Amino acid sequence: MSHDALKLVTIGGGSSYTPELIEGYIKRREQLPIKEIWLVDIEAGMEKLKIVGAMAQRMVKAAGLDWEVHLTLDRQAALKDADFVSTQFRVGRLPARIKDERIPNYYGLIGQETNGAGGIFKAFRTVPVILDIVADMKRLCPQAWLINFTNPSGMITEAIRTYGHWDRVIGLCNVPVMAMLSEPELIGKTLDQLTYKFAGIDHFHWHRVWDESGQEVTMTIIDKLFGDNDAGLPTNIFDVPFFKDQLAAMRMIPCGYHRYYYRQEEMTAHGLAEYRENKTRAQQVTQIEEELFELYRDPELDYKPKQLAERGGAHYSDAACEAIASIYRDKKTHMVVSTLNQGSVPDLPSDHVVEVSAQIGAAGAVPMAFGHFQPAERGWLQLMKNMELVIVEAAVTGDYGLALQAFTMNPLIPSGATAKRVLDELLIAHQAYLPQFADKIQALIAA
Amino acid sequence: MSHDALKLVTIGGGSSYTPELIEGYIKRREQLPIKEIWLVDIEAGMEKLKIVGAMAQRMVKAAGLDWEVHLTLDRQAALKDADFVSTQFRVGRLPARIKDERIPNYYGLIGQETNGAGGIFKAFRTVPVILDIVADMKRLCPQAWLINFTNPSGMITEAIRTYGHWDRVIGLCNVPVMAMLSEPELIGKTLDQLTYKFAGIDHFHWHRVWDESGQEVTMTIIDKLFGDNDAGLPTNIFDVPFFKDQLAAMRMIPCGYHRYYYRQEEMTAHGLAEYRENKTRAQQVTQIEEELFELYRDPELDYKPKQLAERGGAHYSDAACEAIASIYRDKKTHMVVSTLNQGSVPDLPSDHVVEVSAQIGAAGAVPMAFGHFQPAERGWLQLMKNMELVIVEAAVTGDYGLALQAFTMNPLIPSGATAKRVLDELLIAHQAYLPQFADKIQALIAA
Amino acid sequence: MSHDALKLVTIGGGSSYTPELIEGYIKRREQLPIKEIWLVDIEAGMEKLKIVGAMAQRMVKAAGLDWEVHLTLDRQAALKDADFVSTQFRVGRLPARIKDERIPNYYGLIGQETNGAGGIFKAFRTVPVILDIVADMKRLCPQAWLINFTNPSGMITEAIRTYGHWDRVIGLCNVPVMAMLSEPELIGKTLDQLTYKFAGIDHFHWHRVWDESGQEVTMTIIDKLFGDNDAGLPTNIFDVPFFKDQLAAMRMIPCGYHRYYYRQEEMTAHGLAEYRENKTRAQQVTQIEEELFELYRDPELDYKPKQLAERGGAHYSDAACEAIASIYRDKKTHMVVSTLNQGSVPDLPSDHVVEVSAQIGAAGAVPMAFGHFQPAERGWLQLMKNMELVIVEAAVTGDYGLALQAFTMNPLIPSGATAKRVLDELLIAHQAYLPQFADKIQALIAA
Amino acid sequence: MSHDALKLVTIGGGSSYTPELIEGYIKRREQLPIKEIWLVDIEAGMEKLKIVGAMAQRMVKAAGLDWEVHLTLDRQAALKDADFVSTQFRVGRLPARIKDERIPNYYGLIGQETNGAGGIFKAFRTVPVILDIVADMKRLCPQAWLINFTNPSGMITEAIRTYGHWDRVIGLCNVPVMAMLSEPELIGKTLDQLTYKFAGIDHFHWHRVWDESGQEVTMTIIDKLFGDNDAGLPTNIFDVPFFKDQLAAMRMIPCGYHRYYYRQEEMTAHGLAEYRENKTRAQQVTQIEEELFELYRDPELDYKPKQLAERGGAHYSDAACEAIASIYRDKKTHMVVSTLNQGSVPDLPSDHVVEVSAQIGAAGAVPMAFGHFQPAERGWLQLMKNMELVIVEAAVTGDYGLALQAFTMNPLIPSGATAKRVLDELLIAHQAYLPQFADKIQALIAA
Ligand SMILES: [Mn+2]
Ligand SMILES: [Mn+2]
Ligand SMILES: [Mn+2]
Ligand SMILES: [Mn+2]
Repeated sequence: MSHDALKLVTIGGGSSYTPELIEGYIKRREQLPIKEIWLVDIEAGMEKLKIVGAMAQRMVKAAGLDWEVHLTLDRQAALKDADFVSTQFRVGRLPARIKDERIPNYYGLIGQETNGAGGIFKAFRTVPVILDIVADMKRLCPQAWLINFTNPSGMITEAIRTYGHWDRVIGLCNVPVMAMLSEPELIGKTLDQLTYKFAGIDHFHWHRVWDESGQEVTMTIIDKLFGDNDAGLPTNIFDVPFFKDQLAAMRMIPCGYHRYYYRQEEMTAHGLAEYRENKTRAQQVTQIEEELFELYRDPELDYKPKQLAERGGAHYSDAACEAIASIYRDKKTHMVVSTLNQGSVPDLPSDHVVEVSAQIGAAGAVPMAFGHFQPAERGWLQLMKNMELVIVEAAVTGDYGLALQAFTMNPLIPSGATAKRVLDELLIAHQAYLPQFADKIQALIAA
Repeated sequence: MSHDALKLVTIGGGSSYTPELIEGYIKRREQLPIKEIWLVDIEAGMEKLKIVGAMAQRMVKAAGLDWEVHLTLDRQAALKDADFVSTQFRVGRLPARIKDERIPNYYGLIGQETNGAGGIFKAFRTVPVILDIVADMKRLCPQAWLINFTNPSGMITEAIRTYGHWDRVIGLCNVPVMAMLSEPELIGKTLDQLTYKFAGIDHFHWHRVWDESGQEVTMTIIDKLFGDNDAGLPTNIFDVPFFKDQLAAMRMIPCGYHRYYYRQEEMTAHGLAEYRENKTRAQQVTQIEEELFELYRDPELDYKPKQLAERGGAHYSDAACEAIASIYRDKKTHMVVSTLNQGSVPDLPSDHVVEVSAQIGAAGAVPMAFGHFQPAERGWLQLMKNMELVIVEAAVTGDYGLALQAFTMNPLIPSGATAKRVLDELLIAHQAYLPQFADKIQALIAA
Repeated sequence: MSHDALKLVTIGGGSSYTPELIEGYIKRREQLPIKEIWLVDIEAGMEKLKIVGAMAQRMVKAAGLDWEVHLTLDRQAALKDADFVSTQFRVGRLPARIKDERIPNYYGLIGQETNGAGGIFKAFRTVPVILDIVADMKRLCPQAWLINFTNPSGMITEAIRTYGHWDRVIGLCNVPVMAMLSEPELIGKTLDQLTYKFAGIDHFHWHRVWDESGQEVTMTIIDKLFGDNDAGLPTNIFDVPFFKDQLAAMRMIPCGYHRYYYRQEEMTAHGLAEYRENKTRAQQVTQIEEELFELYRDPELDYKPKQLAERGGAHYSDAACEAIASIYRDKKTHMVVSTLNQGSVPDLPSDHVVEVSAQIGAAGAVPMAFGHFQPAERGWLQLMKNMELVIVEAAVTGDYGLALQAFTMNPLIPSGATAKRVLDELLIAHQAYLPQFADKIQALIAA
Repeated sequence: MSHDALKLVTIGGGSSYTPELIEGYIKRREQLPIKEIWLVDIEAGMEKLKIVGAMAQRMVKAAGLDWEVHLTLDRQAALKDADFVSTQFRVGRLPARIKDERIPNYYGLIGQETNGAGGIFKAFRTVPVILDIVADMKRLCPQAWLINFTNPSGMITEAIRTYGHWDRVIGLCNVPVMAMLSEPELIGKTLDQLTYKFAGIDHFHWHRVWDESGQEVTMTIIDKLFGDNDAGLPTNIFDVPFFKDQLAAMRMIPCGYHRYYYRQEEMTAHGLAEYRENKTRAQQVTQIEEELFELYRDPELDYKPKQLAERGGAHYSDAACEAIASIYRDKKTHMVVSTLNQGSVPDLPSDHVVEVSAQIGAAGAVPMAFGHFQPAERGWLQLMKNMELVIVEAAVTGDYGLALQAFTMNPLIPSGATAKRVLDELLIAHQAYLPQFADKIQALIAA
């Protein structure tokens, strides 16, 4: 990282999140000597790319910066000699996500972007594409860092390391960010007064917190969370409270997505209600996105509109910018990232990806050792991580039996004939994006 | 084990299984120099003890043996200087099991003796009693072996070792026995031509099989199981087939109880149908037991009646006799038992109990190393074993939060308000047998 | 293993051990339907092959058997469609072993066939050859079993599995056999009354023993070993007693080779005395071999002469025959073999080779779980196994730095300039057999 | 840690290091609101305590501070309500160290303060005393942090956690400090441009280094170390170079003490030369100490004299002050400390002490995950850590067999009769400080 004229590339540059990303770069103009920003998208995303790309150019200009903002469909030209590549694409875009949600819903199951059947299929669609990108990077920018915030972020990072054999990657999520933004004030502290330790896997981790006098304040925060307080939840998660007795035994703070596993009944009911009103999250987001792009079209708009916050992924792009700056400037920042375990979560294999408190600097992510979990969380975590491994292997190999194993393991999918039917329907529904499963899909269609 | 006048004790001697046990001893008369058999029960089981005890005495006499058969409610007298103690008691007897089944059923959940909410409560009721027995054994017969086949057998064995600190214990189950009795003929072999390797935990294990030429025949057996064949299922498990695609990815044979986890939908539907007809398994068994005891009352009956086979636990007692003979005679028999892991299942902690192929001899059980599982089975197994640890700790401590954690982890119980309600109702329903939860139950009743 | 006309191949067929091997086959004539025995050797061993091969033919004939005994230098013809391949070759023959012993001795270090600097170089010479044999077997007899008793047996087995990727291998040693032959009578028992559990790595393992009543008798045997008793030592190990205080803390019986590590001072002194008298073990063995081959030349001799027992490897070949018969007949025999760990020694990685009590049958070796060692033995064992991994990697790659690492780790070689000089001299001395180190040796010679 | 009037206690306050400690406090006067400093010693150390204590008082006064500096033999009074307790005592003082060095030397063995036979005996003498201090702390200052820099620092920290069950402890050493002070300039960098990762155990660890562009510079530093450069060695370590071929295979930088293990021959020769000249390190230090105390006696001296740097432990006390300030101010400083593993060194057990890069803040030490070592270093490390566990257990129990096991494991002590004699002589020589071995010592004396 000795460049002083950085080339930053974003795959999925036509995303509605791009303005946050650009804002994040601008905010760090002193830290990052940016020369070029390349926003890459595919044919189908060209229109959105043009809109949001023009807006990005306006934002840069309004900031008085001479950065080049390139809009392109030519991924290879973009990747050539890149310093940092961030990924925020969505294979099949929102229409695919709507299927991920509504097909399980139809059968009474949770339909969610990164959890349950939908999350598995998002991985199935995304893994082949990310491995393709990694193959390009090996040729075109072998020294670049890959900052992934394409979901399911943990599994995508796992695929990049285990099947792509690419080490210079950091996987991001905004959920830990939101916890650290909201919790301190619950106990009358600021973030810099606290020590956070997170461990687990993406969208399935826990954390503990200590104050500046060394006292653990985890239970104090839990108590406050059961008061009348904001839990720091992403807007895409319905806010049903955890059982306090359970958290008292746990003595850790679960992440927002744990609601799907700890309050499955209520989360299902809530999701099915949205389904029946034609308002699943993907449908809401489609609406929000339309409105956002309407705003972005405004040739006067040259700053991130506040409506973007409703989009659900707030802070994701900012986290990406912070990761880039931390690596480039060797800032040794505390961030919670998906990275190689290396023992930091000793209940999981050392050579696979976990999401954990880490120090981010020039040498990448150095994870902080969390120690063993108690049996309850250890069991959950081992199930979920192994399920991730099965999903990623199925995504790479196109093995139907493994796909069925993943569905069977998933705690949000009761096993049996319905589960198998949902699997089969999703395979058929996403046929265009699942080349690895082509034969099986043909057979299913023929049957 | 140098005695030549063995004292064998059975706690829960009034059980309907006792005739199988006695038959097992008689069958091994050449191997076991028995002097005394003590059948122990509690006040509430006195009548059954008298009936089945008298029958045991007739069986021994009919076999021309001079063994003493003592019937007693005095556990301490029975345990004094015992050589082998087997346990087959049921805390709360069948009425408690009916609650374990019907209360979850009422809320649409699986009601089962060793799985789901019912299995958790069977552990909650049994653990305090077994630890009490172990405390007696330490004083009265510190050299004795404890052969446990009280369910949930794996968790009870875990409690005995981890909280009772008693090493001379072997936990038994008839499920592996039945697989080894039924599978060989599917492929035209006899058991002695095959090598079986089982590993996992009680009621949640898998196995692989090799023939006498060293070829693995696991997939051949699986193929046959999908033909029109007997799967070697205990009679208490409904026979819905596994998905063949799943087993093809697994390349191992799951145990019968895996149906609850791999075909949850169908198993639930079947169980609820039985519930609606007032024919849950416990209710069926109550009926069968009445009939059995009617038979046992016949002063002419001096052999195990064939109707006992329907009871569901066939081969359990015979396995206990074989374990006793194998230890006493140092037979180095292959049996599948619950014992300390010691590395044989490297995906689980070395110092906890697993169910695994072992060599049974004078030195107890020597487990055979199985090696690592593939991710899918590894994840399932780690979840289930950790759940066992949570259940046993909750059973010992009476911690309500841990009980809720166990309910939440259990794959057969969707988490949420209903799950918590079932937990609370079961606590109240079993109040008489749950002294460790007394305060919480009081609070629940008061609320 | 469905053949009923077995083809057995021995690489290194010209060895003086061959008569024991033939005797072992003859002893098992009822168990093994042998059709052909192929004794393979290399050009340099042709004369010995002829002598011992002719003797083998006489032995078979004297036993009234119609087995074909082929003598050949054509390894590929021999391996074609083999059922069992045993390896007992010695790269560089006894002259190389003399160098392995005398060069370290010259510098005051222990010179030994499988330990210290000599053992490392025996591995360096042998690993490339065994991997070549495995490559042949993949083409010519992919279903065959490889029974290795070429030393250092554990490292050779490790190389076969880890670098040869060949699973159907069992590594043998006579040290456990000798312990089990000599110890029982020390305590007035027979072997079949005892349960032995061995664990560790080849030439560096410990064992515990239980009697038929389940009492551990390890300390009783230790007490007797400190009496005036035969320790069951191979004749190549000088009999200095262990410290009893140390064994009392250990509560296990170390193997004979532990003397090098637990009584290094005395073993060194003894070895250097032999060195000064020109009687290192290899020199003694050279003499013994000459005498043996003199005997073997006798056209009347058609049985194994008793003088072979002095050779040091007694029972090695018999163990090989027993392993073959146990696999072929699925005998499920207890043997102590080098095989994949699979968790049986949880203090070492699951996916590397250990030497451990195992059940030998049609499916190969099923290791028995030993559980964790206490810290002292755990530390020793982890050092030694990791040293094996370094040695094998150096043997495969020819990396000089790794060779130096291995020398530095070895507890019998004090690190420093002398150690490096011994390494360099041995490299040069064995140049003909170390193609992987060719460049480094050239550089050393040039320097 | 909410105090704003800190009470700092130093056990072994009469040490010659105390001026560095006081200087360290003074340097951090802005960070640490000190009210009282208690220097504690024992009767035998009273004179030194008075001298150095008076000097400490002068230093504080010269700095214009109103801190109370108490000198006392009453440890309990000192510990009462302490905030931080640092330990720098030496049981038996320098005369004991002279024995630790010269008795092994007499038998041709390395005599060293923390390695070999001497290091084992330093642990034997110190462990009982530190456990006594911990027992006091539990009663008198249960919220205090214990900053240990009494050697052997890693083993003492292990004893504190494992046998003292005291978690609030950090073990320190100056070796990593010196590497980080000397290495950066070798490659033209400053420390803040580099990322260091250390892992291992005290006096037996390795490190890797990355520069501010993320390139690993470990091999660059190694290259420079083989130039004409200062290796950042403590003055008590003789500077024989490592073998470069070995370090090339290792690709890590060993610590200075690795010389004893990687160049044993030269280190022994050097030590024996010093022995013959009556100049072992302890003897040198005795001389240096006398000179230092001569200086300290000067009532005009009110600053740390530069001669203290020769003492060998430079930076030790400063590291202690930095640890205290980092905890008190939640500075999240990178330090290399002995702390609970928690997975950071996955080749060692999670629940024992390692020495590792950690972030030091209000919550104590958060270790950074290092990942697996290569086999050579893994083997060494596992041996050495297990040896530590044996030593500490022997120190606690007084078990002679374990002491002999420790001697046998130690790579610097060739096993055998001489080793045992050294053990016995050291036991007798240190009788006054080894109450746990009293019976064995009596027997040895009587024999
Ligand atoms: Mn996320
Ligand atoms: Mn069962
Ligand atoms: Mn051997
Ligand atoms: Mn130090």
